[in-house]
Amino acid sequence: MVTPRDTWLTLQELRRVAPLVHSITNYVAMDVTANALLAIGASPAMVHAEDEVDEFVGLAHALVVNIGTLSPAWVSAMTRAAEGAASRGKPWVLDPVGAGATRYRTGVARELAGRKPTVVRGNASEILALAGASTTATRGVDSVHQASDALEAARDLARELATVVAVTGAVDYVTDGERVLRVENGDPMMTRVTALGCTASALTGAFLAVQPDALLAAAQALGVLGLCGEIAARAAAGPGTLRLHLLDALYRLDEGGIEGVRIGE
Amino acid sequence: MVTPRDTWLTLQELRRVAPLVHSITNYVAMDVTANALLAIGASPAMVHAEDEVDEFVGLAHALVVNIGTLSPAWVSAMTRAAEGAASRGKPWVLDPVGAGATRYRTGVARELAGRKPTVVRGNASEILALAGASTTATRGVDSVHQASDALEAARDLARELATVVAVTGAVDYVTDGERVLRVENGDPMMTRVTALGCTASALTGAFLAVQPDALLAAAQALGVLGLCGEIAARAAAGPGTLRLHLLDALYRLDEGGIEGVRIGE
Amino acid sequence: MVTPRDTWLTLQELRRVAPLVHSITNYVAMDVTANALLAIGASPAMVHAEDEVDEFVGLAHALVVNIGTLSPAWVSAMTRAAEGAASRGKPWVLDPVGAGATRYRTGVARELAGRKPTVVRGNASEILALAGASTTATRGVDSVHQASDALEAARDLARELATVVAVTGAVDYVTDGERVLRVENGDPMMTRVTALGCTASALTGAFLAVQPDALLAAAQALGVLGLCGEIAARAAAGPGTLRLHLLDALYRLDEGGIEGVRIGE
Repeated sequence: MVTPRDTWLTLQELRRVAPLVHSITNYVAMDVTANALLAIGASPAMVHAEDEVDEFVGLAHALVVNIGTLSPAWVSAMTRAAEGAASRGKPWVLDPVGAGATRYRTGVARELAGRKPTVVRGNASEILALAGASTTATRGVDSVHQASDALEAARDLARELATVVAVTGAVDYVTDGERVLRVENGDPMMTRVTALGCTASALTGAFLAVQPDALLAAAQALGVLGLCGEIAARAAAGPGTLRLHLLDALYRLDEGGIEGVRIGE
Repeated sequence: MVTPRDTWLTLQELRRVAPLVHSITNYVAMDVTANALLAIGASPAMVHAEDEVDEFVGLAHALVVNIGTLSPAWVSAMTRAAEGAASRGKPWVLDPVGAGATRYRTGVARELAGRKPTVVRGNASEILALAGASTTATRGVDSVHQASDALEAARDLARELATVVAVTGAVDYVTDGERVLRVENGDPMMTRVTALGCTASALTGAFLAVQPDALLAAAQALGVLGLCGEIAARAAAGPGTLRLHLLDALYRLDEGGIEGVRIGE
Repeated sequence: MVTPRDTWLTLQELRRVAPLVHSITNYVAMDVTANALLAIGASPAMVHAEDEVDEFVGLAHALVVNIGTLSPAWVSAMTRAAEGAASRGKPWVLDPVGAGATRYRTGVARELAGRKPTVVRGNASEILALAGASTTATRGVDSVHQASDALEAARDLARELATVVAVTGAVDYVTDGERVLRVENGDPMMTRVTALGCTASALTGAFLAVQPDALLAAAQALGVLGLCGEIAARAAAGPGTLRLHLLDALYRLDEGGIEGVRIGE
């Protein structure tokens, strides 16, 4: 059982440390993930030149690699940054956006997954593709599966890679191959705002910077984002207003508000 | 005469199908076009690596190519994706952003225009440049001409390319070289929000996925965007709030609201 | 003493001319800087292909170069555009994002700083790094220094480069090596919205297009942005709403409102 108080302690520490989160992410997610990281209290930096990624990851508290708009030069930088994080023992998150959609994308996602990510976060289709368990093609970047469909694949993948795997959807599952945490926050309208999955990965990076238990860090990040999505949806007339209220909610979330986080086993 | 009911039927079908719209677009437009496509009910995917564009366009319902922040590697991917769409008979939209501003840009726009786009959507200066009819340089990416100035050029271009050409401005004109539809929705404040022209092209892609008459699809997409812009402008204190209310309006637009679409001959 | 009336006259001229601001900026800042330039009344264009930057800078009223997400191909384009601006006597602004964080970044920033920028705008850590005066590493892209800590370095740098240097922070300082202007607008919540430093540089480009005194242009741009940030913060529940109210405020700012600009010596 993870209490809201546990999550509150992590969030307080995050705001105290203001971790530098090195992000190599996609063009669509750049703006909203940077804003979400700033709103929650972290310090984002988007840095992808091969000439500096290794040096930069040395300065960062955590790395987030997101393959959404990948191309060969970016993949080289991602690989190098991942190696830099792994070799320094720094936490890093892999977001295998669209794995399963094309051979190239699936190949890159698997290659990066082999470089000891601390957490892999994806939707059900992506996790199934990464685990080699899917016989259905991913439909672009949106999932055609429920998160629960991917739970067994996630558990296997977590064991195989010795990592934590988070499958997000209406309910999120986070597993290290043995334990499984369920996160029951969120609102359906969140699926109509671009890059909130990417934002979940970005926040996971920030939480990992201050919470060494990766299973807990991922679940808490997902719980906080989902809860803030719920708060935002209550005041939103549509996805435009939802997004901005979500950023406000990440900024304002306090000890009372965090009681709404629902993380169970 | 295109009735609001016709547009409503297309929009309902769009929301039912949730078409996958493969977008190769510019960095400025990534965020707002992805959000607009999600808000209206489509599924956007921004994919530009040469190693996967052809495979990806095979999964997509429609392709949108926007040259706003072009560079050689991107142009190769755009060309390959356009070929993939044309060879599979999938609809694709060309947005020749800034054609006329530089020789490179005009050349790329013309080269892509020769690859059988289903719809070309631009402002008056861009369409004039593409048609080789302008003697005035484009002023950056904003038009120095009225849409009506480009109507003849658009008609000629549509005939020459055997495509539909949409010229957007205070009034939008859509032509297949014979027929011309006028779309009279929109609000002047929309010109103060970046990438709403790109958003028009993106939505045209989504409408083409479900409406085989390209002339109609383009006019309906422009009508819906313009109408949602009007709805948003009524509640907006400036372009910041206009943008978010526009996304909300795309999400909320219903059979009653769509009565405001004004498409005529 | 710079009166609000002086700033108002510049802003009126900016809105009359609607200067074309050629921006080579980072992926995170693309959206918000384009929207801020449109909101204030300028015409932004993001153009970075080496094949067209020189021709494009010939069309523009001002150039802004921001190294936030640099990579070698982009640095080549930045260099070429900077040369094109300098050789044509067009104003250009350098934003050395993250200078000091990595050797590559510091080297590129210094190289560009040697190409006669009209204004260099950075936070204190970046200006110290550029001046070679810092012994503390920049922490990612956020400053670890107060703007006042960098004032001497800014003055030296301005003299060495024969340029205007703006150091932004809680108070902003703008200097040409002799004179120093203090700008006292802004709100702490602005640091929780991404790319507002980049936006300060972008607006400086727009002001330089119509105000030939670069010291004044930079101070006025910073004053207007800071003031609009204050106005936005009063209505904001967090950084999500702050950003959109800021865009609205840039659009709405009038002669009465501009009385709040505080530029002194």
